[in-house]
Amino acid sequence: MSAEERLAELGIVLPEATTPAAVYRPAVKTGNLIVVSGQVAVREGQILSPGRLGDAVSLEDGYAAARQCGINVLAAVKSVHGSLDGVRVIRTVGYVASTPDFTDHPRVVNGASELFRDVLGEDLGVGARVAFGVAALPANSPVEVEVMLEVLA
Amino acid sequence: MSAEERLAELGIVLPEATTPAAVYRPAVKTGNLIVVSGQVAVREGQILSPGRLGDAVSLEDGYAAARQCGINVLAAVKSVHGSLDGVRVIRTVGYVASTPDFTDHPRVVNGASELFRDVLGEDLGVGARVAFGVAALPANSPVEVEVMLEVLA
Amino acid sequence: MSAEERLAELGIVLPEATTPAAVYRPAVKTGNLIVVSGQVAVREGQILSPGRLGDAVSLEDGYAAARQCGINVLAAVKSVHGSLDGVRVIRTVGYVASTPDFTDHPRVVNGASELFRDVLGEDLGVGARVAFGVAALPANSPVEVEVMLEVLA
Repeated sequence: MSAEERLAELGIVLPEATTPAAVYRPAVKTGNLIVVSGQVAVREGQILSPGRLGDAVSLEDGYAAARQCGINVLAAVKSVHGSLDGVRVIRTVGYVASTPDFTDHPRVVNGASELFRDVLGEDLGVGARVAFGVAALPANSPVEVEVMLEVLA
Repeated sequence: MSAEERLAELGIVLPEATTPAAVYRPAVKTGNLIVVSGQVAVREGQILSPGRLGDAVSLEDGYAAARQCGINVLAAVKSVHGSLDGVRVIRTVGYVASTPDFTDHPRVVNGASELFRDVLGEDLGVGARVAFGVAALPANSPVEVEVMLEVLA
Repeated sequence: MSAEERLAELGIVLPEATTPAAVYRPAVKTGNLIVVSGQVAVREGQILSPGRLGDAVSLEDGYAAARQCGINVLAAVKSVHGSLDGVRVIRTVGYVASTPDFTDHPRVVNGASELFRDVLGEDLGVGARVAFGVAALPANSPVEVEVMLEVLA
């Protein structure tokens, strides 16, 4: 099954990659690498569950926000690669807005990582990862997700 | 016009790449990639506007600090590549020291991104980007900027 | 002397690369790059010195924690490369859990960087670096270290 078919099966419709207000691109290619800009948890112009984990945002809502970041990452990949086939996730960074006493960042970031695994498959969708707690994120997003991928030969 | 000519036109004189006190290099090359160390907002040995955005540091001062980080990034690139020509910005990370309620990180990091665009041009100076709020930065710098570039064939 | 011999001389026994509970791998290879997941300061299942720098965790304990993160990074490298020879450190990121007024992140992260230098040598063990203060880390680790390496031709 292709990545696009898995997306359809999951009932996910990718948005257009956002054209950022700021001076950067949603994603760029260099050699056989795709570098995707940090994606916040925005859907149809609205940030999902603004705020911090450990404070206003529950683990469940953080997970859903990370999943939305992941959807926006896939849209950015498609915008430079034309497809979601033939790519492998190499490195995911999960930035989680959190209070100093919140320590469950991995479970939040799984919202994006499990999406990548489900859409791209275990072999191509699971890479290296970093997850950590940040003081605050653009537009008060609870999560931001950044990914580097390999274009398969 | 070359990148060096644009620098001169902007009235920017690059410093020497700082020789770090710690055990790392200002920048390294691997294959056709240049990986630059995180650069704080230091000019002639002084940190510009120490502190945090949302607290002691204004948006304007944060922007100026990010621009200084960008100048230090360009100096580090030159130290390993010998020139600013023939390189393309792939990924910029903007680390912004900020209070939990500050959410305007992209406008701060534009201080570096607009410098790269103005010096290297729209095609080569604008890449992918991540911006987020950190708890604190080395030497109390308000901003730190890290960049990965491609050496053009 | 090989990297393995230097490790033995330093009296360091690498653990098995941890099999993460979450959906990611300890490290992946792409082309001639090795991308290692963020490693927290865990030894035999216990986090060393949980908490934040500037608060419960001293500079000395932070340094020791960063060194332990570094040991876990080397274990992850070995798990995908089979050896510690023939690799060069390109980029190290040191995530330091810290209060807003702690600004000595570089001295903490030296715990990992000096280990890499001692094990891999000055030429191969010292690369570019970023160090900064985060709000909180997984499992309340005081430090997390992430590394990208080059496989030498």
